[in-house]
Amino acid sequence: MDVKLKSRREFIKLAGIAGIGLGAAACAVAAPVAPSPTPAHDDHSAAAATPEVTATPVDMDAMHEAGVKKYLDNIGKDAKFYGNKLDPKNVDGVKEFNITCSEIKWDAGGGAMADAMAYNGTVPGPEIRVTEGDKVRVIVKNDMKAQSTAVHFHGQAVPNNMDGVPFITQPPIKPGESFTYEFTAKNVGSSMYHSHHNAAEQVTRGLLGAFIVDRKDKSKDPAYDSEYTLILNDGVGGFTLNGKGFPYTQPIIAKLGEKIRIRYMNEGLMIHPMHLHGLEQLVFAADGWNLPNPYYCDTLNIAPGQRWDVIVTAHTAGVWAFHCHILNHAESAHGMFGMVTAIVVK
Amino acid sequence: MDVKLKSRREFIKLAGIAGIGLGAAACAVAAPVAPSPTPAHDDHSAAAATPEVTATPVDMDAMHEAGVKKYLDNIGKDAKFYGNKLDPKNVDGVKEFNITCSEIKWDAGGGAMADAMAYNGTVPGPEIRVTEGDKVRVIVKNDMKAQSTAVHFHGQAVPNNMDGVPFITQPPIKPGESFTYEFTAKNVGSSMYHSHHNAAEQVTRGLLGAFIVDRKDKSKDPAYDSEYTLILNDGVGGFTLNGKGFPYTQPIIAKLGEKIRIRYMNEGLMIHPMHLHGLEQLVFAADGWNLPNPYYCDTLNIAPGQRWDVIVTAHTAGVWAFHCHILNHAESAHGMFGMVTAIVVK
Amino acid sequence: MDVKLKSRREFIKLAGIAGIGLGAAACAVAAPVAPSPTPAHDDHSAAAATPEVTATPVDMDAMHEAGVKKYLDNIGKDAKFYGNKLDPKNVDGVKEFNITCSEIKWDAGGGAMADAMAYNGTVPGPEIRVTEGDKVRVIVKNDMKAQSTAVHFHGQAVPNNMDGVPFITQPPIKPGESFTYEFTAKNVGSSMYHSHHNAAEQVTRGLLGAFIVDRKDKSKDPAYDSEYTLILNDGVGGFTLNGKGFPYTQPIIAKLGEKIRIRYMNEGLMIHPMHLHGLEQLVFAADGWNLPNPYYCDTLNIAPGQRWDVIVTAHTAGVWAFHCHILNHAESAHGMFGMVTAIVVK
Repeated sequence: MDVKLKSRREFIKLAGIAGIGLGAAACAVAAPVAPSPTPAHDDHSAAAATPEVTATPVDMDAMHEAGVKKYLDNIGKDAKFYGNKLDPKNVDGVKEFNITCSEIKWDAGGGAMADAMAYNGTVPGPEIRVTEGDKVRVIVKNDMKAQSTAVHFHGQAVPNNMDGVPFITQPPIKPGESFTYEFTAKNVGSSMYHSHHNAAEQVTRGLLGAFIVDRKDKSKDPAYDSEYTLILNDGVGGFTLNGKGFPYTQPIIAKLGEKIRIRYMNEGLMIHPMHLHGLEQLVFAADGWNLPNPYYCDTLNIAPGQRWDVIVTAHTAGVWAFHCHILNHAESAHGMFGMVTAIVVK
Repeated sequence: MDVKLKSRREFIKLAGIAGIGLGAAACAVAAPVAPSPTPAHDDHSAAAATPEVTATPVDMDAMHEAGVKKYLDNIGKDAKFYGNKLDPKNVDGVKEFNITCSEIKWDAGGGAMADAMAYNGTVPGPEIRVTEGDKVRVIVKNDMKAQSTAVHFHGQAVPNNMDGVPFITQPPIKPGESFTYEFTAKNVGSSMYHSHHNAAEQVTRGLLGAFIVDRKDKSKDPAYDSEYTLILNDGVGGFTLNGKGFPYTQPIIAKLGEKIRIRYMNEGLMIHPMHLHGLEQLVFAADGWNLPNPYYCDTLNIAPGQRWDVIVTAHTAGVWAFHCHILNHAESAHGMFGMVTAIVVK
Repeated sequence: MDVKLKSRREFIKLAGIAGIGLGAAACAVAAPVAPSPTPAHDDHSAAAATPEVTATPVDMDAMHEAGVKKYLDNIGKDAKFYGNKLDPKNVDGVKEFNITCSEIKWDAGGGAMADAMAYNGTVPGPEIRVTEGDKVRVIVKNDMKAQSTAVHFHGQAVPNNMDGVPFITQPPIKPGESFTYEFTAKNVGSSMYHSHHNAAEQVTRGLLGAFIVDRKDKSKDPAYDSEYTLILNDGVGGFTLNGKGFPYTQPIIAKLGEKIRIRYMNEGLMIHPMHLHGLEQLVFAADGWNLPNPYYCDTLNIAPGQRWDVIVTAHTAGVWAFHCHILNHAESAHGMFGMVTAIVVK
């Protein structure tokens, strides 16, 4: 999936697809912006349902519009949002990945740098992807100064000593030390890797990432044309999708008729019911296991630790809002923020 | 479904159905009421699990009993609780509905008037109901002074420019302005309509309602004799069902053997696992889509944004408590409150 | 299921099963313990995700290790954790159980005695177990001084006057009084019994227990070799499994290949998504009703009031961590606490 939007101009063109014959709606996007007395709200950590009693409707609308404009302007400018993958080295038939833990400052999008912990310098860490049956080696170096750590491959049935639970299956990886995880990837589908040491802090601060195992026999899954992973979090940087809060999230961009696989992964401490406008979600896998009977919904509740895989068929053109339906994870009087993005169907 | 209870006397008769031959239990309902030193607790916004250390058991029981008495006395006195429907005009084959948004005071039942926002003056707004394939027009007038708004038809696959997301699919509807939504109702089942502008505030304050699309071929749904919608909310007025908190909620009243369809809709910010006593729930639809394999439960978890449809067969006579099982959404030391009602089977 | 571990030595032997050929991991469990400057954290009520900024990595690791050591040392020392069952008297073909409610001090494991309310002196109360079709009598004596009470058999379809809702189906059971519940057990599977009077306080303080109805025709359930009940709670004693917080919880101990039935019951006010490492969960029953199509997962979300039954096949040896994946219900900077246990496969 390498379709990208380069400019707001192109987006407006897209939005126009849906707006043909409906001038007001289509033009709204391109309408001149009223002077905004208040800068767009960039503090994604505030789940503010509090009304802004002193703001006029014009002020409030301007703040909302400014957020949407930022989102549109930012499209295509964060290639890592869906594409932060880690290439393995092939060492004697083993796929070897190197992961370094470090203390960093993380910007969820608005410029506020939060104290984070990261795998290879990003939140989430890079996606690790292998194929069913692959021998996998993950060498984890702890470059953090303040804390030991350990990595759990959440969703993978590994030998017990590779399970990543300090003092149960291994000693913690102390600052400056390394630990090598080695196992055969057995569980197809959407798994995660994350810290299992002081995890309420370390995972919420960013030590997390997707661990995906491609199935050998793809005929056992529903057909799809493209795929995207959305990691939900409510820790560092506030309410985030793939480490970013709206307007710094990226849309999924699809052709009419395209079948999109979305992998939801909840690495936060709260549930997040993800609502997609206009296009239904066919829920077909729980924690990597295909359901015996997939079912449709528009709002899928993802609890902490869960992964759910869905197929979305892009059957109608337009810009479809896509957000957590706990509304104060997604919008305040200052405009949309946090767990909001869109599917754009051309 | 037009069965109504007019008096507490009749209720006791109903309760008596279950109590035949079991004097103590049946009589409890009709027993003389001890003088209550404390008025029944009407503050539905308090989720008080705090013990009332100074209350004696007699005091506490009296407060609980007073609440139940109010509930019984109130039966049949709120025809809008399940029956707040909006009649369309038929305009050249289009079903046309008029919705006006305004700032009101809303009483969830105890007399405390809360600052609310409402469609046509009620929380929830009136039910909009059409049939699969109908052409629908909803003319939304914004009579609010403080805020612009927009309406999203949550669960309906509409043309993108009818999707109700300001600055993405339309300009916000400013105070004094109107916007006309027009689409063909494609998605059968239980949808909702609600604000999608500053929604964390506007929806929690009351800009929400049921949007129901009847299926043409009813043989595709399980059979049922009657149906009720329960909109769950945790915003204005505290924990509410259809805008009211116990004891101001209304029971569902059914004949023995009746098959009842219940449409749950969560418009709040929290999950609400709804527990029904004595009668099982057959869960058959998620967000309007029938499940390939319906399943039974007694406690159904409804997350924000979700709708679930169930069938309850009234196989046993009696008054069956029906409430959110997050217990501090349903009961305090002052008695039951909030998300509590009953199914009464005669 | 009477397999028990008597000592930490035996546990290390078990852990060694998984560690063969992987010295570092296996030895970690048996490694000499560094002097711990801080006693292990026993305050289970603290959901502390707060970093301990002044603790060194060595200090923090020592606290974590001390917790795991306590857990290992405690294995087999709490026979009631999975085995607190109430024997009935057979009275003229009726299975009669006696339950006494009283105010007690409850120790969730760390020595802090919390003000609790209990059935027969334990939190949870003893398991009541009967067989489908049994006539059941439960005589409830209220020996509490401060509050009346009533018992609801959550999940059982009982005659209405046996449903336990004060002022709806019975008078409350006042201090010093008794009430006799009598019904035929119709609903097979995992039910609960708990207070339905001032329940937000009484249930969170401990008036709760398992009510299990064995199916006559066991061929209708998936096959299993052993079974365990895990009652989740977030009231008295903090985050607990069967009334205890880690490190005072007990593991499930299984032979390689053993099929384990786990009955989850949520008696708290919060969701708890239970994650099991290394072994998949086959979800086959909701609230006692078998699902038409069981499905696999590794993280099962259990909402308040729900019961879910799963089968776990112990296909791989080792010590598999098993915990709520809302991470601040399971771990703090002081180490694991609360809703954490393990499945040990020999």
